[in-house]
Amino acid sequence: RPKRIPFEERAQLAQNACGKRLFELMARKRSNLAVAADVGTVQEVLRIAEAAGPHIAVLKTHVDIFDEWNSGIAAQLRKLAEEHDFMIFEDRKFADIGNTVVSQYGGGIYRIADWSDMTNAHLVPGTGIIDGLKTVGGPKGCGLLLLAEMSSKGALATGAYTEKVAEAAVANQDFVMGFICQTPAKWSTQCPPGLIHMTPGVQLASGGDALGQQYNTPEHVIGSGGSDVIIVGRGIIKAQDPGAAAAEYKEAGWAAYQLALQS
Amino acid sequence: RPKRIPFEERAQLAQNACGKRLFELMARKRSNLAVAADVGTVQEVLRIAEAAGPHIAVLKTHVDIFDEWNSGIAAQLRKLAEEHDFMIFEDRKFADIGNTVVSQYGGGIYRIADWSDMTNAHLVPGTGIIDGLKTVGGPKGCGLLLLAEMSSKGALATGAYTEKVAEAAVANQDFVMGFICQTPAKWSTQCPPGLIHMTPGVQLASGGDALGQQYNTPEHVIGSGGSDVIIVGRGIIKAQDPGAAAAEYKEAGWAAYQLALQS
Ligand SMILES: O=c1cc(CO)n([C@@H]2O[C@H](COP(=O)(O)O)[C@@H](O)[C@H]2O)c(=O)[nH]1
Ligand SMILES: O=c1cc(CO)n([C@@H]2O[C@H](COP(=O)(O)O)[C@@H](O)[C@H]2O)c(=O)[nH]1
Repeated sequence: RPKRIPFEERAQLAQNACGKRLFELMARKRSNLAVAADVGTVQEVLRIAEAAGPHIAVLKTHVDIFDEWNSGIAAQLRKLAEEHDFMIFEDRKFADIGNTVVSQYGGGIYRIADWSDMTNAHLVPGTGIIDGLKTVGGPKGCGLLLLAEMSSKGALATGAYTEKVAEAAVANQDFVMGFICQTPAKWSTQCPPGLIHMTPGVQLASGGDALGQQYNTPEHVIGSGGSDVIIVGRGIIKAQDPGAAAAEYKEAGWAAYQLALQS
Repeated sequence: RPKRIPFEERAQLAQNACGKRLFELMARKRSNLAVAADVGTVQEVLRIAEAAGPHIAVLKTHVDIFDEWNSGIAAQLRKLAEEHDFMIFEDRKFADIGNTVVSQYGGGIYRIADWSDMTNAHLVPGTGIIDGLKTVGGPKGCGLLLLAEMSSKGALATGAYTEKVAEAAVANQDFVMGFICQTPAKWSTQCPPGLIHMTPGVQLASGGDALGQQYNTPEHVIGSGGSDVIIVGRGIIKAQDPGAAAAEYKEAGWAAYQLALQS
């Protein structure tokens, strides 16, 4: 396994402005934690952003599960992102042909490209999806994460599929900032170090839920798994004190990163 | 190639209420046409529904590209569906873990399960996505289409991936009503005839767009391709007279189906 490179250095190697900003932010804030704010109301998401804000590098949203949305709410989230120094990742999992994702990313009620720093996409439709999203997000300085692997049981993003995703990322580094993945140590070691790896399915104890989710620990994911960022949803948002839980996951994620750097 | 079975008979074989209704509707209305209402305003989608309504079996929406949405608009669309006898398919392409799609399908601003007859999903996350969507759509009598193949250039849904999708559909026929696919003749002949095949990437002349879309003709798709339903977007919605274009595609689709039955 090649030696791990610190985030500060990888910021210099990122070919995408958004990826560069995220590496810099993580190094500055000493946090490689993303929180998945999977709550049903705008009030709750603002509360999570406020409580977890000081500890996170990224706030991950599913805007389409909130009870309301408008540009004022987007502005409130952006303000919290400035105040607490985090970035916003809309986890849209775009998965359509290029022509369709152009409208879905830039238009509609959500206007995702207007307020999110980054979003993600499945490569199932082929590389036209990257071309389409790039026409919208490129000029705005946004970044794209490709789903190379998934956390859930029986996921089909494996083997040759994952290899194709890696290839597409390498070929589109002006817009693709990295991956959503599980075990990049297995397939990403030849990828340029400017690409970032973010991993969901993380809790302090391994396990799963009733609908196929599978959990690994921060140590496992960042250590032997070779990832850079942990994405934590229910481990934080269902905790009695989400702010304290975020602080705990931040420490665990950062300790795992420090250890990986040394080994 | 096994002999094609008429829609009337397949309605009896469908194990999902929504699939059964669609087969019956197509036989009754003599239409195997779905229109993709990919427009940016609610006004335009209502106009398309009104003009194409008499000719279509299915109105396919991307609700997240419309400029506004509320339950009143949903009610207007449902009223047009009753009047003109068509079903509504929200082309959401769900692609997340089971726990997340539960909220995305049932909740948020769109409440997709409340007004759509059917929706679709990618199997990338594994079968937990079917379990999750079923908890919401099952009790409402909705149906799910799985994306087995895609129309776009370089799509990764091929070979072993497509086989896995077919297996998952067969194992979940209480909720999965069929497939979004390209060439079911290649892989679906062993699937139960109660499952339906719907194919996008259709125009009267073959070709493509600048972002990877690829077009085949109705004859090709329904004939040698072995599909049941043609999905047509720009071929209809960009026509000077979308109503007349829908009538034309309806004739072409139905003629191809009649020919397939005879051969
Ligand atoms: O493979 C994936 C990819 C993603 C993100 O792109 N996710 C998302 O992470 C979060 C995990 O939440 P949890 O920690 O509560 O399981 C959810 O928002 C889920 O949609 C996963 O859970 N698995
Ligand atoms: O593989 C697919 C799957 C789908 C539907 O699930 N689609 C959709 O069909 C429509 C094709 O439109 P067009 O006829 O204008 O190309 C678009 O809404 C697109 O998102 C495709 O174009 N290709």
